[in-house]
Amino acid sequence: MSNSLKKNCYNITNKMSFTITHKDKHTKARIGILKTKSGDIETPFFMPVATKATAKFIDTKQLEELAPAIISNAFLLSLRPGVEIIRRFKDIKKFMNYNGIIFTDSGGFQMYSDYLYIKSDEKGVYFRNPISGEKIFMTPEKNMKIQLDINADVAMCLDVMPLYKDSKEDIKKAVELTINWAERCKKEHNKLQNKILKNNRQLLFCISQGGIHEDLRKFCIKKLSEIDFDGYAIGGIALPKALYGKEIGKAKKLEQQSIITHKKYSPENKPCYLMGEGDPIWLLEAIALGVDCFDSRYPTQSARRGTIFTKNGKIKILNKKYEYNKAPLEKNCRCFVCKNYSRTYVRFLLRENEPVGKELASYHNVYFMKWLIEEAKKHIKKNNLKEFLGMMKKIYEK
Amino acid sequence: MSNSLKKNCYNITNKMSFTITHKDKHTKARIGILKTKSGDIETPFFMPVATKATAKFIDTKQLEELAPAIISNAFLLSLRPGVEIIRRFKDIKKFMNYNGIIFTDSGGFQMYSDYLYIKSDEKGVYFRNPISGEKIFMTPEKNMKIQLDINADVAMCLDVMPLYKDSKEDIKKAVELTINWAERCKKEHNKLQNKILKNNRQLLFCISQGGIHEDLRKFCIKKLSEIDFDGYAIGGIALPKALYGKEIGKAKKLEQQSIITHKKYSPENKPCYLMGEGDPIWLLEAIALGVDCFDSRYPTQSARRGTIFTKNGKIKILNKKYEYNKAPLEKNCRCFVCKNYSRTYVRFLLRENEPVGKELASYHNVYFMKWLIEEAKKHIKKNNLKEFLGMMKKIYEK
Repeated sequence: MSNSLKKNCYNITNKMSFTITHKDKHTKARIGILKTKSGDIETPFFMPVATKATAKFIDTKQLEELAPAIISNAFLLSLRPGVEIIRRFKDIKKFMNYNGIIFTDSGGFQMYSDYLYIKSDEKGVYFRNPISGEKIFMTPEKNMKIQLDINADVAMCLDVMPLYKDSKEDIKKAVELTINWAERCKKEHNKLQNKILKNNRQLLFCISQGGIHEDLRKFCIKKLSEIDFDGYAIGGIALPKALYGKEIGKAKKLEQQSIITHKKYSPENKPCYLMGEGDPIWLLEAIALGVDCFDSRYPTQSARRGTIFTKNGKIKILNKKYEYNKAPLEKNCRCFVCKNYSRTYVRFLLRENEPVGKELASYHNVYFMKWLIEEAKKHIKKNNLKEFLGMMKKIYEK
Repeated sequence: MSNSLKKNCYNITNKMSFTITHKDKHTKARIGILKTKSGDIETPFFMPVATKATAKFIDTKQLEELAPAIISNAFLLSLRPGVEIIRRFKDIKKFMNYNGIIFTDSGGFQMYSDYLYIKSDEKGVYFRNPISGEKIFMTPEKNMKIQLDINADVAMCLDVMPLYKDSKEDIKKAVELTINWAERCKKEHNKLQNKILKNNRQLLFCISQGGIHEDLRKFCIKKLSEIDFDGYAIGGIALPKALYGKEIGKAKKLEQQSIITHKKYSPENKPCYLMGEGDPIWLLEAIALGVDCFDSRYPTQSARRGTIFTKNGKIKILNKKYEYNKAPLEKNCRCFVCKNYSRTYVRFLLRENEPVGKELASYHNVYFMKWLIEEAKKHIKKNNLKEFLGMMKKIYEK
């Protein structure tokens, strides 16, 4: 690369990577276009989780039918098959043959995996490679290198997610470390991107933490917003759910408060990504608060456990009442599962713990998420998301 | 139904259900057409096992791409979802939405399931329903009723399969009971078919036993051949494999001896079904001995364990040497797995115990079986199956 080109590339952030094309008049919802090196994607969108370069029970050709983007886990992939193998395929997209947009999570979340995590300090995280037994010291810098080598379209900063049992003091420390690591990630990412032509550059999103503490969330996102990331994610929403699992209303209120605070202090013209949300209603409500992007294992995990999402609410397909029911999982659904199979058959397979049952239920639930997002977008464009949300809430809460 | 029609139907066996259309000049192999109430099927053919109305990791729309026929287990289906549920879908075909030919096995094989079997006597078999705890007395008559109610295209007689540890005396008893039960099955089946219009009638195949004892096998098949079944299956081939698992040549010789004896004393103009054979070479050799029909879980089970079938032999995909190998599982294979995925990716998923890995490997192996049978048929038609078999043996035994 010539020196002048190098100069041009260096420190150019992807300022133009996100364009808002429509704003709903009655909520904070918006439609946008996120430009990535693999193509453009309309927001809002939902990503099925493909942790180890695969979703559970859904192959990547099916994923292409179901979702414009997925999220994988860079850290786990660096353990197996290893970055070198993926590099030899050029990138994770070629490795798994998924022709959509690929996000990678840093793997910071794996801090909470007992069989991987050893300890962490200000410099980074110590993990144990469960395969080789080898100790791994993961730093923000190393993590950026991994995500760039894997060559995802969008990388996530290495963050520190507080646990629900943590004191406010501990959460404050996690927030400080998250900010510090985000700075280091950005710096390293910029440095490494230097070698890459503008059109091939990876986007980098940061993640705000702060648990259920509004002051910490505010502090975190304000600090992160001083750095020019391509997107701003909201992390740690598992926390209110863990704390107030049974008081679901309280958990939702806290999650929404986090979104509001995060949105208030983050750049309006950047995509907002709510990590880990896959409940149909909570997701719609988050869209109405201005969230552009989601990921979750909830739709596939629910499917495997027999909870089917439909336009008419959730169905517990294992219930006796579906033992004989010739209808498809969802009436008028156009997915291949609903075109071909009855509730009876899917229920029977799930009860028998047959893998095909899990395949069919998972496919349908992710198809439903695609439908839900498409409907939300239509309503945003017509400025009546509020009505759609109201209607869906009524159905889902009945 | 009018009385005259009843008279016409009664005791009409499906004499015309099998037509041999070509005989190989240098082996005993043949091409035929088996007529069933759901349509015609060219022999030889291979059936993936769909015990509980599903194959493992392959849905029924995929099965339609891969195989003209499958085999389910009538007894297990009668426990769950129960005959009544299936009847309300009209038949097992509608229940699982598989538009090919469906065989059902009686479930006699389940005698060897410790958690189901209690005891048996001359009248029938006592099972324990593992769900309800209820004791079930299964007779040949009841079994025919189940298979007719489920409405498979081809039913199998309830037989008694000897175990490898059984003495010759015990195997003799099993043979005698198998013959006696086959008679009872035929009688009951005829009686029940009485109510069904000719074009909707189910075929009934019997099963010869005799273990590795030629005299017993001969005695069994001779007796069975005195009864006019629609097909004659060879049972108990797991026996030589269990006895001589490591001395594979010995096991194969014994299996082939059973086929030769069975064929010698069974009607030439009826289909011959070798139950449980799915090894590519053993299957080809059986075709050369005049076998028309096969089923086995071996291709899918092997796939899940990392053994991939190809035109160039079996591949142990978990071997380190495939860690980086961009080639498809099989070069020039036209299945969707080989069109889309690398050995590296499938290996990685299998190693990670990811369900999609099992899906992809299973699909490929069953596709290979389809290819193998198609090739065998082409070579039979050209009278050079022997050369094809010789070539495949060389490849597989190298």
